[in-house]
Amino acid sequence: MTNKDMLGRSCVVTREEALRRILEHAAVPSPAHESIPISSSLGRIVAVEVISPSELPAFARSTMDGYAVRSADTFGAGESLPALLNVIGDIPMGVIPDRAIEKGEIMKIATGGALPEGADAVVMLEHTHAVDERTIEITRPAGPIEHVVQPGDDLKKGEVILSRGHRMRPQDMAALASVGVTTIDVFARPKVAVISTGNELVPADASPAPGRIRDSNSYNLEGLILQSGGIPVRKGIISDDEDLLRTTVKDALKDCCLVLITGGSSVGAADHTAKVVESFGPPGVLVHGVSMRPGKPLIAGWAGTVPIFGLPGHPVAVAVSFEVFVRPVLARLTGEITLPVLEGISAYRVVRANLARSISSGPGREDHVRVFLEKRDGELWAVPVRGGSGLISTLVKAVGTVVVPLGTIGIEAGDEVEVRLF
Amino acid sequence: MTNKDMLGRSCVVTREEALRRILEHAAVPSPAHESIPISSSLGRIVAVEVISPSELPAFARSTMDGYAVRSADTFGAGESLPALLNVIGDIPMGVIPDRAIEKGEIMKIATGGALPEGADAVVMLEHTHAVDERTIEITRPAGPIEHVVQPGDDLKKGEVILSRGHRMRPQDMAALASVGVTTIDVFARPKVAVISTGNELVPADASPAPGRIRDSNSYNLEGLILQSGGIPVRKGIISDDEDLLRTTVKDALKDCCLVLITGGSSVGAADHTAKVVESFGPPGVLVHGVSMRPGKPLIAGWAGTVPIFGLPGHPVAVAVSFEVFVRPVLARLTGEITLPVLEGISAYRVVRANLARSISSGPGREDHVRVFLEKRDGELWAVPVRGGSGLISTLVKAVGTVVVPLGTIGIEAGDEVEVRLF
Repeated sequence: MTNKDMLGRSCVVTREEALRRILEHAAVPSPAHESIPISSSLGRIVAVEVISPSELPAFARSTMDGYAVRSADTFGAGESLPALLNVIGDIPMGVIPDRAIEKGEIMKIATGGALPEGADAVVMLEHTHAVDERTIEITRPAGPIEHVVQPGDDLKKGEVILSRGHRMRPQDMAALASVGVTTIDVFARPKVAVISTGNELVPADASPAPGRIRDSNSYNLEGLILQSGGIPVRKGIISDDEDLLRTTVKDALKDCCLVLITGGSSVGAADHTAKVVESFGPPGVLVHGVSMRPGKPLIAGWAGTVPIFGLPGHPVAVAVSFEVFVRPVLARLTGEITLPVLEGISAYRVVRANLARSISSGPGREDHVRVFLEKRDGELWAVPVRGGSGLISTLVKAVGTVVVPLGTIGIEAGDEVEVRLF
Repeated sequence: MTNKDMLGRSCVVTREEALRRILEHAAVPSPAHESIPISSSLGRIVAVEVISPSELPAFARSTMDGYAVRSADTFGAGESLPALLNVIGDIPMGVIPDRAIEKGEIMKIATGGALPEGADAVVMLEHTHAVDERTIEITRPAGPIEHVVQPGDDLKKGEVILSRGHRMRPQDMAALASVGVTTIDVFARPKVAVISTGNELVPADASPAPGRIRDSNSYNLEGLILQSGGIPVRKGIISDDEDLLRTTVKDALKDCCLVLITGGSSVGAADHTAKVVESFGPPGVLVHGVSMRPGKPLIAGWAGTVPIFGLPGHPVAVAVSFEVFVRPVLARLTGEITLPVLEGISAYRVVRANLARSISSGPGREDHVRVFLEKRDGELWAVPVRGGSGLISTLVKAVGTVVVPLGTIGIEAGDEVEVRLF
């Protein structure tokens, strides 16, 4: 089947096939870099791997409160035959002791203190008794480097701390601070154009004339784009007009790396979207119709290196289509590289529940059903929210979704289901 | 046991008991409100319940492309005896049709179009045949309100759309836009003071003299606070000095509703923190030592209505203590009210894996172990990261944690464990 075959006709494919076609073309140009302070880097994607410029720690440190010792001096020590050692001083925090310890000598040290020259272990306070002000009994032998972090134990000079494509977590910020890396190169957040189409739409802050409604899908998309690490760029509300849509998309292609068009779920409007996508040259429209509910009238294609989606106009269809098709594309555009081991793992919290009411589906489609949860006798039940995909309130009442897979005719009440929580 | 008993001594309690004591006092004053545009409201907490100011939709709308009909005109229609009806026009999107339909009349309508007076149902295009330009055959009866959304079906005027304490999701933004609510009252994000203590600490952008290290815990906390919906407020690095700490905490109490002090894991420094917390009057120190690893030397108390935590200085202990104790307190301070049905459900993604190496613990403590994941023959294995809680790199290498519960002596290699992903 060529792309041209699909123009203006419904060539419904499965969700899986649609996603395959879309991602096959997702050979996106590498996003731009920007250098930002590590304090602002939470959730951002590392653009250039970060190498440790120094050893961490730079000196041997104690991990306990106790005494810095030469481990050899404690060999054989026990409750019945303690080692008697001379305290030659306290090690203040933040300085390297100015003298070495010799055979039979020890120094008091706090957690994080620097070991004096000659010491190779720390004995915990708990395993010592003070005989007098200058003499300490040690009742357990200390092994070499016991309770000591040696130079480079945490990070070695030249070691890769964070790889390209890694998403910054709080601990990553701390690791960079530890070695004095206070700015980091991250990928620029991808800009995503949001175009609302429909003669019936007015802005959310306007009073709709009779027969008109407020544009709400752009707000849902704005939130979904932000959640996915993108920057939403509103391109306004336009009427169902092919030329106007083409001009608006052309403008969006200048600064955005992904274009989302909502509305136009009627046959004529969908044709406009398909024609406009085709007009930017190959590969054009790759998907026109998906065997899922809601979200069937999806259009997906590429204008050169920029993916363009024509999302159905029903509020719930917008949310489901974004989740299933747009989010994976946007994830690539952020530059994030998921660890291979985490790949099969849902990016969402998933809970198991019993289905409270049967869901009927058809063998030829995948259903995404909104549910809320109830506890009955301590058991979790997933209750499908009543109401069609045109009702935004059904999404507000829901706490997650249940998927009825392709090839089944539904799920029976009482069956166990997986609920993906929002 | 009174609070005074704990001052300066280790009265180790379980994690559960510590959390109980902390939350018991979490009767926080209601956070301030602020009014923000809905576009900026993702993740914010609703401060005043939002009521729909109008019906949604305001007029009867079609959910399909087809014909607006009087359902009575289609009764009894079938393939063998179709109803023959007169098309009297097209309904353009965005306007209320200017004439009613009478018996035997229909109008062409698109998804989202307004039904004309007299019509009470929509027949899908698929169930019609055009006889001529003005006559349509309908081969299936339409029930009343079939494929029609009636006024108020989505939201009724006066209906509560969002409750106080609800965390804003993308669909919530869309629902508010639908009824023209473009600003929303949310709770102000709680300001959280971060104080780093230790004579050995220098700022992350400084070059530490021998024996000194860079302050990194404040960066970890900054990230954790942001993740939890708070605003981190750096109060700088101070030396281990009781008076200086008191002055700094006093200053923090002016603008912050939660104070985190890190470092001071040595006995003397912990005493400073405990004394300072006590100095602000009752209830003072409520927890001084928790039977968990890492994170044992935790101090928690309240200065009036402001919770204060003295977190251990080891990087991993900071992360674990935050997770276990600070996050639940901060969650209350955001004003969020979790749906009761979601209460027992982890706020994190959790995966099950086989433990790759035995973890030894002690019956008297709970262990939080950092792990990474590996796939072996398609099975997921959790591999404990080697290295003590003083090493930040262990947290960077990990993808999650495994908890060894209190009262067990460890978990054997091969056993199934739950990994809470970061």
